[in-house]
Amino acid sequence: METFDLIILGGGPAGYRAAQRAAQGGLKTVVFEKRSLGGVCLNVGCTPSKALLNSATIYESPAHGEKYGVSAENVKFDHPAAVARKDRVVKQLVKGIAFTMKKENVTVIQAIGIIKGRDAQGFKISAEGKEYQAKRLLIATGSQPVLPPIPGLREGFEKGFCLTSREILDLAEIPESLVIIGAGVIGLEMAAYFNAVGSSVTVIEMLEKIAGADDRDVTDVLYKNLKKKGVNFKLSCRVVEIGESCVTFEEKGENKAIEASKVLVSIGRTPVLNGLGIETIGIKTQKNAISTDEKLRTNVEGVYAAGDVNGKSMLAHTAYREAEVAVNNMLGIDDSINYNAVPSVIYTNPEVAVVGETLESALQKGINARAVNVSMRMSGRYMAEVEGGNGIVKLIVDTENNCLLGVHLAGSYTSEIIYGAAMMIETKMKVDDIKKTIFPHPTVCEVIREALFEL
Amino acid sequence: METFDLIILGGGPAGYRAAQRAAQGGLKTVVFEKRSLGGVCLNVGCTPSKALLNSATIYESPAHGEKYGVSAENVKFDHPAAVARKDRVVKQLVKGIAFTMKKENVTVIQAIGIIKGRDAQGFKISAEGKEYQAKRLLIATGSQPVLPPIPGLREGFEKGFCLTSREILDLAEIPESLVIIGAGVIGLEMAAYFNAVGSSVTVIEMLEKIAGADDRDVTDVLYKNLKKKGVNFKLSCRVVEIGESCVTFEEKGENKAIEASKVLVSIGRTPVLNGLGIETIGIKTQKNAISTDEKLRTNVEGVYAAGDVNGKSMLAHTAYREAEVAVNNMLGIDDSINYNAVPSVIYTNPEVAVVGETLESALQKGINARAVNVSMRMSGRYMAEVEGGNGIVKLIVDTENNCLLGVHLAGSYTSEIIYGAAMMIETKMKVDDIKKTIFPHPTVCEVIREALFEL
Repeated sequence: METFDLIILGGGPAGYRAAQRAAQGGLKTVVFEKRSLGGVCLNVGCTPSKALLNSATIYESPAHGEKYGVSAENVKFDHPAAVARKDRVVKQLVKGIAFTMKKENVTVIQAIGIIKGRDAQGFKISAEGKEYQAKRLLIATGSQPVLPPIPGLREGFEKGFCLTSREILDLAEIPESLVIIGAGVIGLEMAAYFNAVGSSVTVIEMLEKIAGADDRDVTDVLYKNLKKKGVNFKLSCRVVEIGESCVTFEEKGENKAIEASKVLVSIGRTPVLNGLGIETIGIKTQKNAISTDEKLRTNVEGVYAAGDVNGKSMLAHTAYREAEVAVNNMLGIDDSINYNAVPSVIYTNPEVAVVGETLESALQKGINARAVNVSMRMSGRYMAEVEGGNGIVKLIVDTENNCLLGVHLAGSYTSEIIYGAAMMIETKMKVDDIKKTIFPHPTVCEVIREALFEL
Repeated sequence: METFDLIILGGGPAGYRAAQRAAQGGLKTVVFEKRSLGGVCLNVGCTPSKALLNSATIYESPAHGEKYGVSAENVKFDHPAAVARKDRVVKQLVKGIAFTMKKENVTVIQAIGIIKGRDAQGFKISAEGKEYQAKRLLIATGSQPVLPPIPGLREGFEKGFCLTSREILDLAEIPESLVIIGAGVIGLEMAAYFNAVGSSVTVIEMLEKIAGADDRDVTDVLYKNLKKKGVNFKLSCRVVEIGESCVTFEEKGENKAIEASKVLVSIGRTPVLNGLGIETIGIKTQKNAISTDEKLRTNVEGVYAAGDVNGKSMLAHTAYREAEVAVNNMLGIDDSINYNAVPSVIYTNPEVAVVGETLESALQKGINARAVNVSMRMSGRYMAEVEGGNGIVKLIVDTENNCLLGVHLAGSYTSEIIYGAAMMIETKMKVDDIKKTIFPHPTVCEVIREALFEL
């Protein structure tokens, strides 16, 4: 029976980040991870998709070069080469995390850790026949794709016709046609990639808009761009059956079939809880997610849950911060998470990046809110770089307290701009103080500042 | 004699921004601008150079595509087409400013306004035979390139062999070889562009490093990248003569000659004051710049000076803010400029973006400062997008007050990231509060946050 100060179940963003901070804080820490360190995000999610999308951007670049004075012939995309590069990048980053774990003296055990119970010495974890114990436990087992009960879906997965985000990143060749079920972040990013590199892409979405609850004005910018590039959208449509190389969906009460070489199922993700043994220590869950408070504590003293497993935000960067809050509280440093300023990005072209309230959500909360919506064409840089762009900056302002509640961006660089907006919202910075900040010129970000003068 | 509330001399960033804000604040405003609204920045500076650099980036993209799975043949760059597009963009943006002036009821007079004196009714301005008066005056006449007393330089300009940043943006064809005198922002951006599109570029710089007082670690990243791409640097060298299609410079006490099709002179800029009539009302200057205080007031009550003409920072975004501070004070709204958090960007590949103190400047001021320097390779996005990149994030922290003093970045997207750093410095945000902000993942900007944990 090996004893630790902290046992972490899961080596994804929440798990490895918590391990790093806990070890730096002096806790003897062990992480259980059956698969690869880095979790879904690094191995089969955010990072590899960015490598592929970057390759697609380079591929598209000369094709649209004419407007900018560039021409090229015989532009070719080598999908297996892009995938191989993606794999190299992921491998390197996983090695980086392993190196950090080693440097900080974190024990990493490549196995699933299962909770067996607790006694006066702490929580008992078993993994491949061995037992471990610790006074503190962090559950960071992440999430997995939701697989809806659509007839034919299970068979589709067995045959390799249906894929989740995990498998699609490793496709050996570009499918002639691709049907994507679900127009969330993953669905949209994959639609952008496969459309760019030559697939005929159809996205089927139950809602009447793409990108879930994101502000409609910004998601409309993306919708128009993807549509113009050739992505076929079926909104307000429901998939009713997966057949042999075809998908049947209902559109306005009528069943329609569409041919597909592959189907990506990306309708959402759900926490991984099964078989973990959380019932042995009585951890409370709600809607299949572990219940946590603002300090990431579960109902059981000494047990924390961070990352997708608590179902709060299901984003890697939230997981990082949750991990840090949990570890700070373990170390006696008072810290709480604030979910009001969690940015979210869709890495398409144009990028969509949002943080904070929409006008609708603010008004629903009874806040005196106003929206201002300006074109990115106010930016000299945007004009210089994006011919015919339709990017926008939309701000939601609390008119009573004169501070920002939400920033919604569609356009170039927005993935790297949004953190500053998160900071303004997190610190409740006054509009007048934002105006006193000097934004560099010419940039796209300066449109945020300029928009404040339009209020 | 037409009477206004505010007379503005110069329609560049300081001038047009002040006019816009003053008119919105209820002041009857007139702007005198002989050339095109938008000034140097928009017409022959920041914005047009960004259009050209963007074209060059697109041109370079397939050439380096192999690593990312992209190949192309016969990639060609059409410099005249890129220049024509640049001209269209500038024209559109100038029209945008003219539209704003009209919308806000600002009178724009296309002439040079000359100060003739003052009486009880206000300051007297004359332009093309007509007289104007106002109680308030804003001088925003900008700057012009410094032309050093190098033998042969005047003749070089007369023959069109020597160019300033104004003329080089309109070159009809790419010069076979280009010598650039001065490795400041303009020199480096033009070196990057012309090197990318096929010129043989040599940069001659008197200092032993590029990019003036910018942090050496970040400028070294750029230096290495430009050198690797083929730019020839002659540091610690002084130009001694301009000949017929050649430039003679001194290197380690020895004179050397280098052939050139064109020469760009970009050693700095100096305020435009001559012939303005500032002496008629006794405006104080220092080192050929109008002296201003933190409210942009000159020594003469009612007279303000904003933008390059006061020689403080000589950047368009500083000019914007100075204009706003000046107008706020005219309107009775207390406001002061803070030059501690003025970002500065070099739009090369990689981009360099800096704000605030360097370690050296902080220590010189007697601040307890520390530096932390981390590789951008900590960013999954950077790794995914930049093969073999050497970008860095360098932070300067006030260890006594636990806040950021300086942020120095070299790498992708940094031009759009730096505003957030300016905000952190401007608001004296505590390091612990920055850590509480959720930065999106995977991004390059999150390395700033990560670096704080390395302190």
